[in-house]
Amino acid sequence: MQQAIAILDSGVGGLTVAKEVMRQLPQEKIIYFGDTARTPYGPRSAEEVIRFTHQIVDYLLQFQPKMIVIACNTATAVAMEEIRSRLSVPVVGVIHPGARAAIKTTRNHVVGVIGTEGTIYSRAYEVALRQISPQIQVMSLACPRFVPLVERGMFRSDHTRHVVASSLEPLRQVPMDCLILGCTHYPYLSDIIGDVMGPGVTLISSADETAREISTILYHKGMLATSSNYPVHQFFCSGDPWMFKQIAQSWLGEQIKVTPVVWQVPNII
Amino acid sequence: MQQAIAILDSGVGGLTVAKEVMRQLPQEKIIYFGDTARTPYGPRSAEEVIRFTHQIVDYLLQFQPKMIVIACNTATAVAMEEIRSRLSVPVVGVIHPGARAAIKTTRNHVVGVIGTEGTIYSRAYEVALRQISPQIQVMSLACPRFVPLVERGMFRSDHTRHVVASSLEPLRQVPMDCLILGCTHYPYLSDIIGDVMGPGVTLISSADETAREISTILYHKGMLATSSNYPVHQFFCSGDPWMFKQIAQSWLGEQIKVTPVVWQVPNII
Repeated sequence: MQQAIAILDSGVGGLTVAKEVMRQLPQEKIIYFGDTARTPYGPRSAEEVIRFTHQIVDYLLQFQPKMIVIACNTATAVAMEEIRSRLSVPVVGVIHPGARAAIKTTRNHVVGVIGTEGTIYSRAYEVALRQISPQIQVMSLACPRFVPLVERGMFRSDHTRHVVASSLEPLRQVPMDCLILGCTHYPYLSDIIGDVMGPGVTLISSADETAREISTILYHKGMLATSSNYPVHQFFCSGDPWMFKQIAQSWLGEQIKVTPVVWQVPNII
Repeated sequence: MQQAIAILDSGVGGLTVAKEVMRQLPQEKIIYFGDTARTPYGPRSAEEVIRFTHQIVDYLLQFQPKMIVIACNTATAVAMEEIRSRLSVPVVGVIHPGARAAIKTTRNHVVGVIGTEGTIYSRAYEVALRQISPQIQVMSLACPRFVPLVERGMFRSDHTRHVVASSLEPLRQVPMDCLILGCTHYPYLSDIIGDVMGPGVTLISSADETAREISTILYHKGMLATSSNYPVHQFFCSGDPWMFKQIAQSWLGEQIKVTPVVWQVPNII
């Protein structure tokens, strides 16, 4: 049996990573978990996000994945190091790949970051960017209204356009040349975000960059899939599978089967 | 003492990698070796390139580098696996980073590759690309006239423009959407190559991508430099240091000191 790459998120955001993994690593099997019953993670306490992330990782370990991808910026910011220290399989988060891509892209050393409250207040991007390149200036903005819109499938409505434009207003005058979409849900809104920020600002999708980093790590560990058969992916979600399936099929452009998982102790805001 | 990243090439080509490492990882110290007495490597036998590469690596090991970067596609193609198997420090080549970037970039699955004869006849890019993404079509072309032009510092002459245009003629009608510069010397000619190929073809510099991959691997191994002092790099070359220094200073945009190294048994084509 081919060992899978396990990808987890608070909801449908990690599908932006999964789609890129499917495109860049078409031979790799994916097992995806979206914690849609407890989304969004952004406003939750670090302690709660850590507990949820451990719980999902434990669920995914039954499938003996070859790698765990924490495809949620909020969970990466607060839980990745702890998860990494307790597992023997490689654990990849979404913050450092985005940071590295921004360092490669920026020419004026002014980088913007948007994300959930949890991600922005953790200052995880700032630490990751400045650890590597101390002269970089980071302008961060929490956009707590974006994830709920995406989880309801509202990617292109006038209301969404209005929310995005007004949320990003504080960044409009900042002379950044790239903006990190520091939440895996945000690529669903990238057309609108791009329109608002204008052509002088390159959007960095941590999803795209994470897929490439997964490829790099699997190669250097000698763990790339060798079969040329196309794999059958598996999808799990903790909430109502109907909306998850609609969004996933539309985003991935293919039919999927979704298995609902009921947590024994539901915990919904 | 801060451990350095050791970068080697047949000549000035690897400086395209070094420059990107300086930009993307400004705190990392670099020790660079250009084997200018024996450039170009492209037309040499695999056996000879392997022997030269081992010799340079042995020379660089005296500095106890934390990583060896084989910033020469020809040497990566034939010698990297052997070098990697005998060293305990990480060894990074330039072929897989370029291949991964092309897989991320291409939308029509037709990828062009240009390189030296040694690189192209090794089929190393084809293997790297198709190992990950079997549906990709690869169109490869050896461009043996490019490296000698770069080593003589002729980046912008009419003669160079003519050589590049006529060399690339066979690729002009191929419906590729990206072209891998599969030789670290070629970024010196990227403006001309871009003009010849037109705006529909994205150029992939294995130099830029390798720098990012170095960053990824150092991070995942916990080996990133932690000092915020800017390092003093060291440059060595086996041939006349005058031309090497001219090209290096012009490309890197800073003054450097070059130490000539005389091989005991010179071996010049």
